Amino acid sequence: MTTFDDHALTAEVLQAFAATPNPRLKYLLQETITTLHDLVRRTGLTFEEWNEAIDFLTRTGQTCTPLRQEFILLSDVLGISMLVDAVNHREREGATETTVLGPFYVGDHRQTPHGSDISKGIDGAPMVVESRVTDLAGKPIAGAEVDVWHADDDGFYDSQKPEYATTGPSLRARFVTDDDGRFSFRTILPCSYPIPTDGPVGDLIRASARHPMRPAHVHFLVKAAGFEPLITHVFLEGDEYLRSDAVFGVKDELVAKVEAQDTPTLPNGERVDGPWHRMTYHFQMKPGSGAVPKPLMAAE
Amino acid sequence: MTTFDDHALTAEVLQAFAATPNPRLKYLLQETITTLHDLVRRTGLTFEEWNEAIDFLTRTGQTCTPLRQEFILLSDVLGISMLVDAVNHREREGATETTVLGPFYVGDHRQTPHGSDISKGIDGAPMVVESRVTDLAGKPIAGAEVDVWHADDDGFYDSQKPEYATTGPSLRARFVTDDDGRFSFRTILPCSYPIPTDGPVGDLIRASARHPMRPAHVHFLVKAAGFEPLITHVFLEGDEYLRSDAVFGVKDELVAKVEAQDTPTLPNGERVDGPWHRMTYHFQMKPGSGAVPKPLMAAE
Repeated sequence: MTTFDDHALTAEVLQAFAATPNPRLKYLLQETITTLHDLVRRTGLTFEEWNEAIDFLTRTGQTCTPLRQEFILLSDVLGISMLVDAVNHREREGATETTVLGPFYVGDHRQTPHGSDISKGIDGAPMVVESRVTDLAGKPIAGAEVDVWHADDDGFYDSQKPEYATTGPSLRARFVTDDDGRFSFRTILPCSYPIPTDGPVGDLIRASARHPMRPAHVHFLVKAAGFEPLITHVFLEGDEYLRSDAVFGVKDELVAKVEAQDTPTLPNGERVDGPWHRMTYHFQMKPGSGAVPKPLMAAE
Repeated sequence: MTTFDDHALTAEVLQAFAATPNPRLKYLLQETITTLHDLVRRTGLTFEEWNEAIDFLTRTGQTCTPLRQEFILLSDVLGISMLVDAVNHREREGATETTVLGPFYVGDHRQTPHGSDISKGIDGAPMVVESRVTDLAGKPIAGAEVDVWHADDDGFYDSQKPEYATTGPSLRARFVTDDDGRFSFRTILPCSYPIPTDGPVGDLIRASARHPMRPAHVHFLVKAAGFEPLITHVFLEGDEYLRSDAVFGVKDELVAKVEAQDTPTLPNGERVDGPWHRMTYHFQMKPGSGAVPKPLMAAE
């Protein structure tokens, strides 16, 4: 190329990926390349801006640990996670709505008996969660695995705390539904909280003058044989950030009324000094496979 | 949003970034968000594919060290680095062509006297580089800083070797041009080599059935007051990978004839047993500023 032409360059790059054996990977790579090249051309991205982007992505990767996923957080604050959710869950047919996984899921949780207090003594207003997992017709699903996790009264997940390695999980557990599809546990009332702002995503949030808050919620990941895995949250009605969630995760159907109770005893027999709260939510699972497809870049 | 609409989501995300104070950052963020949302929608990206992309980007960041830049390598193999180069250097007006920085530039080099042997005894055919830096009219530029770096006979840069921390740089130095704009050094003939394939970018290259080779070259980064910094390579004529560089970096104007010589003595007086090579290249600098703009995400 005596005269270097940037459209010829794009064609040359696409050609270089043309022999990709996996057709879906080839398609995704070629679409990604076309899209990113168009973006660079359209914006006239400068060398310094490219350099800043490289540095930002590098720091994002390096902020990740087994307990913190800054790239998921980046995807979340750009609305990409919710969009991936949306394009994959267009037809719910009455099934519970889905939302983002978030950066604080740390893999399989420890199975815990029904009614357990998962707060491990962390301060906060007592909350009891009583829930049921059924199919679309309301038939109970027994033996479903339900991973739950939520932040404490100060907005921190257990995995964000330095003592996590020694004390283990709190406000995080797995329940297995009984023959009637039910599970329940005792915890504390979650509150709205900021996403972590001490990493590159925090820099982005500040540079774009956004607030970092998420409305109060409890995460649920429900898995049952013969059904699509359900990744969702249940949000608390009345939270001031329900209309401006930093990660765009709220859907109306996922907002639950959490009712204040004034009996002196929780359902598990624990006596309490003040009011407590009851969250009830019914999860309806969509039939499907929980099979995980082969990765795109897997060796043949 | 009772019915969750993915176009409404994109609008909501753009609105969330609408108050970004820096207008260029706002523009780049909104274009990037629009582009990435379109990509997700158009391809129907699955949750598993998104997860694989998150994992790939995380590993790319975590493969980076102060001596290795895997995100630059990713940008390189996707042709993005060369495109950023192209859109920023459309009018060369006779100035030397530019190409990618590459992932092995490690920052400022140590200043070295003219004629020095920078090979530190590494095996390879001797090569002498004799060069000159001028303005577009051919007027010499004195005091220009010229950083050079290249791979050894096995295709490795000094910074890729475990002993780098103790032995320091080899095949890497800085020269400052004399009053006639000249500098020269003794090194070894570089050869074509594979980009590093032991990280995520290597996984991508394999998954797309590409070869990882780059044609033999020497990197140059030339800085002089009153001129645009020049980031380029000089390639060796005749290399079999000149037409299929893994990072798309070759421009015809950057290919140099490296002539074999048979005198028994190098210009620096060193006696050699076989033939040696002479690379000559004339760098012509474009007037401009070396000023680095304020980062987009800098605190106000």
